[in-house]
Amino acid sequence: MSKPLIGIVMGSQSDWPTMEEAAKILDALGVAYETRIVSAHRTPDRLFDYAETAAPRGLRAIIAGAGGAAHLPGMLAAKTRVPVLGVPVQSKALSGLDSLLSIVQMPKGIPVGTLAIGPAGAANAALFAVAMLATTDNALAGRLDAWRAAQSDAVAEEPKRD
Amino acid sequence: MSKPLIGIVMGSQSDWPTMEEAAKILDALGVAYETRIVSAHRTPDRLFDYAETAAPRGLRAIIAGAGGAAHLPGMLAAKTRVPVLGVPVQSKALSGLDSLLSIVQMPKGIPVGTLAIGPAGAANAALFAVAMLATTDNALAGRLDAWRAAQSDAVAEEPKRD
Amino acid sequence: MSKPLIGIVMGSQSDWPTMEEAAKILDALGVAYETRIVSAHRTPDRLFDYAETAAPRGLRAIIAGAGGAAHLPGMLAAKTRVPVLGVPVQSKALSGLDSLLSIVQMPKGIPVGTLAIGPAGAANAALFAVAMLATTDNALAGRLDAWRAAQSDAVAEEPKRD
Amino acid sequence: MSKPLIGIVMGSQSDWPTMEEAAKILDALGVAYETRIVSAHRTPDRLFDYAETAAPRGLRAIIAGAGGAAHLPGMLAAKTRVPVLGVPVQSKALSGLDSLLSIVQMPKGIPVGTLAIGPAGAANAALFAVAMLATTDNALAGRLDAWRAAQSDAVAEEPKRD
Amino acid sequence: MSKPLIGIVMGSQSDWPTMEEAAKILDALGVAYETRIVSAHRTPDRLFDYAETAAPRGLRAIIAGAGGAAHLPGMLAAKTRVPVLGVPVQSKALSGLDSLLSIVQMPKGIPVGTLAIGPAGAANAALFAVAMLATTDNALAGRLDAWRAAQSDAVAEEPKRD
Amino acid sequence: MSKPLIGIVMGSQSDWPTMEEAAKILDALGVAYETRIVSAHRTPDRLFDYAETAAPRGLRAIIAGAGGAAHLPGMLAAKTRVPVLGVPVQSKALSGLDSLLSIVQMPKGIPVGTLAIGPAGAANAALFAVAMLATTDNALAGRLDAWRAAQSDAVAEEPKRD
Amino acid sequence: MSKPLIGIVMGSQSDWPTMEEAAKILDALGVAYETRIVSAHRTPDRLFDYAETAAPRGLRAIIAGAGGAAHLPGMLAAKTRVPVLGVPVQSKALSGLDSLLSIVQMPKGIPVGTLAIGPAGAANAALFAVAMLATTDNALAGRLDAWRAAQSDAVAEEPKRD
Amino acid sequence: MSKPLIGIVMGSQSDWPTMEEAAKILDALGVAYETRIVSAHRTPDRLFDYAETAAPRGLRAIIAGAGGAAHLPGMLAAKTRVPVLGVPVQSKALSGLDSLLSIVQMPKGIPVGTLAIGPAGAANAALFAVAMLATTDNALAGRLDAWRAAQSDAVAEEPKRD
Repeated sequence: MSKPLIGIVMGSQSDWPTMEEAAKILDALGVAYETRIVSAHRTPDRLFDYAETAAPRGLRAIIAGAGGAAHLPGMLAAKTRVPVLGVPVQSKALSGLDSLLSIVQMPKGIPVGTLAIGPAGAANAALFAVAMLATTDNALAGRLDAWRAAQSDAVAEEPKRD
Repeated sequence: MSKPLIGIVMGSQSDWPTMEEAAKILDALGVAYETRIVSAHRTPDRLFDYAETAAPRGLRAIIAGAGGAAHLPGMLAAKTRVPVLGVPVQSKALSGLDSLLSIVQMPKGIPVGTLAIGPAGAANAALFAVAMLATTDNALAGRLDAWRAAQSDAVAEEPKRD
Repeated sequence: MSKPLIGIVMGSQSDWPTMEEAAKILDALGVAYETRIVSAHRTPDRLFDYAETAAPRGLRAIIAGAGGAAHLPGMLAAKTRVPVLGVPVQSKALSGLDSLLSIVQMPKGIPVGTLAIGPAGAANAALFAVAMLATTDNALAGRLDAWRAAQSDAVAEEPKRD
Repeated sequence: MSKPLIGIVMGSQSDWPTMEEAAKILDALGVAYETRIVSAHRTPDRLFDYAETAAPRGLRAIIAGAGGAAHLPGMLAAKTRVPVLGVPVQSKALSGLDSLLSIVQMPKGIPVGTLAIGPAGAANAALFAVAMLATTDNALAGRLDAWRAAQSDAVAEEPKRD
Repeated sequence: MSKPLIGIVMGSQSDWPTMEEAAKILDALGVAYETRIVSAHRTPDRLFDYAETAAPRGLRAIIAGAGGAAHLPGMLAAKTRVPVLGVPVQSKALSGLDSLLSIVQMPKGIPVGTLAIGPAGAANAALFAVAMLATTDNALAGRLDAWRAAQSDAVAEEPKRD
Repeated sequence: MSKPLIGIVMGSQSDWPTMEEAAKILDALGVAYETRIVSAHRTPDRLFDYAETAAPRGLRAIIAGAGGAAHLPGMLAAKTRVPVLGVPVQSKALSGLDSLLSIVQMPKGIPVGTLAIGPAGAANAALFAVAMLATTDNALAGRLDAWRAAQSDAVAEEPKRD
Repeated sequence: MSKPLIGIVMGSQSDWPTMEEAAKILDALGVAYETRIVSAHRTPDRLFDYAETAAPRGLRAIIAGAGGAAHLPGMLAAKTRVPVLGVPVQSKALSGLDSLLSIVQMPKGIPVGTLAIGPAGAANAALFAVAMLATTDNALAGRLDAWRAAQSDAVAEEPKRD
Repeated sequence: MSKPLIGIVMGSQSDWPTMEEAAKILDALGVAYETRIVSAHRTPDRLFDYAETAAPRGLRAIIAGAGGAAHLPGMLAAKTRVPVLGVPVQSKALSGLDSLLSIVQMPKGIPVGTLAIGPAGAANAALFAVAMLATTDNALAGRLDAWRAAQSDAVAEEPKRD
């Protein structure tokens, strides 16, 4: 397998059903990636290590999912210049509004590109990462265009009435 | 002036004080950009034209700011594979919560990388765009690293008590 | 079947259980309509085509349902002078608050008449469209009055205690 | 002056700076209207009288603005088949979120077409009413098209940088 | 059965599982009441009739439950000087936040005493009504004191651990 | 001066500009009252004393205003059977949403009749208290009816356009 | 069993599934505690008694859980200098947002250290209490360090894909 | 000056007007402290250094204030067993709701004791820290009791009417 260009990281195993959607998109579009569990709060040193090695290891983007007081995307972004895409995982009590605000409301100076709450956001983080890579990779741009065209074509003209 | 790599677009002149922060960052880091007013609602055809020509014209990212029922970033993303970064402009009644949700809650398939509400978000959109370009531009990566280091160095050790 | 006066459009098949309530009302009151899937994000060109042909084809109102970052109603309204009624579909994480704000908070110049979140909103969009038509159609006004009277008569005097 | 086709009603004098935007649009587009203060809570009988006479007097739409626990639009709609457009006036403590929810979340059976919070919503209510009338009035449709075209043309290409 | 002192009204049969809690409290404390379905939107005339006859018929308080754009309590209060207690019924999409704001945010001049969202609010509306009556009815005050004391006594010292 | 029937209590001097509206209403309608500062958090014993003596001293209702984590109304209600009306004072950061939820969301068993956020809520608490007293005081009922009629009469027919 | 250092109190038996998580942590770390049901609203005198005896009985912290208009933590804090940790219990209608704001938004002068909504917050209240004790108890500090290290070690490197 | 027991840290100089309230309380109660600017995002390494040396340097509590996507308190807590008290600084667009949720909604395992939004929260964080120290310091307990008693005594009996 080729060297991963994208890192998919998440705070815990319970985030996998959400983040899996990112992996599926990258698989479909033929972009190499790695998956890691990195908890900002339970494994802060691992977070720093991961961020510090991201650029040297050749990662071109990090997709980070977390819920509640979601500090993972922002802290990764604080420690690496590699673009970080944040996925707010839906939380139990507040349905991910806490996750969203914790990720998106970053102060001036350290950006996190934030996607929608939940699995759709994870898929879109991957599509965004692909689009980034596609700006300098014509073959990938072609595959992305095809994927988008197929998505458009799959939209039926009329709703099925049962 | 060199060909713009980044498009900064906004729904109206009143968004400029917010989006200006993006321009300042790109100026500081030496990345060519263009600025346009494109209203999703008042100039929908201009929106489509802008999006359709973005990739052929060589844009590598679009930074789009809008407020209220903010449809500009998402509709641009629907029409181009060029990565779109959304900046929720602070709105009068709901303080930008409407802008934020209208931009970030995109459905699966069409991503918008969303930043914080207001000027900090505009600055961060530019920093994110620079970080994207820096993944394949070592000189720019160096400038970004220096900018980030300077930002860190500017943080005083102790608060000034007046 | 007579030429449709009302267009019921929605972002995806999954919106049909909501939008079906609009169809039921129009069936009950004898107003011709068409149903279409038009995704603002996955089929933006179809959206423009639909909006551009709405007036020439004789549509008198469009009922548009969408969820999350719901751009369909507002973008239709940007492209046609035919009145657009927006139905916020209940979303998974934020229960339709995102859908509501994305639809209702339109900027000055392009209106969307917005109804309640969910199936009740879809039914009411149809009733609103009927009321619009009834302002110049006495027979329809009579049917609407009868429908409203029957609705009133169906309200029991006392709650049933089981 | 010709017989009013549109009624602009509001809960109190303090709503006028908001609702005035509706009057301006109707003036600009040459649609006759009347303005009334009708308080759902302080003058409930006036509300009923107004609603009961709306259809016989030839009103084709009612634009109703109210703030806080905003009951005026919904109660008018309960008493007349004339289409009611609701304008949530920005409230002091909750910035109009209370007004919005009180107006838009109508139960199945009695619709209120709701616009944005504040003056933009009032202007849009008038534009929506005009669009309704324009479906059966070619001259008005022409004026509305011209107004919309002028609005589009007024959007500058680039933001002014001071 | 004695003449009702309290009216329990609600917008529809579906509110009964909530409002039933009010009836149970009044049964337990021996206060006569009546139950009625009065829909502000589907039966506005019934609402006015009910409110206009409340004082002459000897009602001492009205407990009104409604959900969504909940106009019933406020409109009753607009039409009668009899104290109105509002119970926000939990709504599907917004969990009763819309009901709460629609009821509690009444403008100066027409009060509604608002209780918690859902069945607890209905029970408390009844307890509040009883407390009102108890200010001039020593026997009832005694029964209320006993009910409250029993409630206190029923609180265990320690949680049961299973 | 006659013995007070109503107690107006508040958490601090800073609540007076809000609670003053309650006093004005009681003055206007000729109902005797007292005003006290009782802080649930800074003077909890005073709170208990006040509540325990409320019924013996002849208070017929307590109007309690507080902001933020507003515990005063609920704790008074826990300690006296005298009806407690809660006024959410507008708070700095959250505009009184915290005050409102802290007051209105009482658990089953101990009711607080809650009014709108801010001065309008304070005025309405007084009007509610008057309405309670008026159920057994014909003279006061007459004064309240007159006050309400005057309020209705003061509503102009049309908005003044400047 | 040794004298309890921590009091775990809650408003009702229904809070136990939440607060049990605090007990589990204290069991795991060998800190003596007691569990009590103390309802601010149904047993206000018990609340005062509990708070007044907390310091003399040697409690070093109180963990208090409550939902809705959650007054228990704040009122305990008003009556004792022993540090109070508040746990917002998830409520039915508003998912604990009401509980959170009622607990955390305490006015200047009486603090409550507030944790997350629900069981995670209860566990964390216990961990916070242990950390407090550990500042003057080296053995406990060692056990806490070990517990935290084990927690870190339990985080897998990669998510399991099924 | 004696060795600091409490660390007051904040994300930037702009947080000082908020965090100053914590310093004032510690000054008033005679507890030694230090003040530092530590930005989670701009100086992440400083954050780790600060947290790692907190316990060895003898800090007994850390008071950390931050706004927006406020990661400082939670990341400090991830790196030290010293109790961390979080102060949500009021943010521009969302008034500190983002700060609050980013701080309080920590996952199970790493607690942050969270106080109210803004300066009151900073003062209360200091009072909480003092209360912690007072559990093993009788002299300080006495000073805290006196401070609290003075606070109670300063509450006037009646509001001043101007």
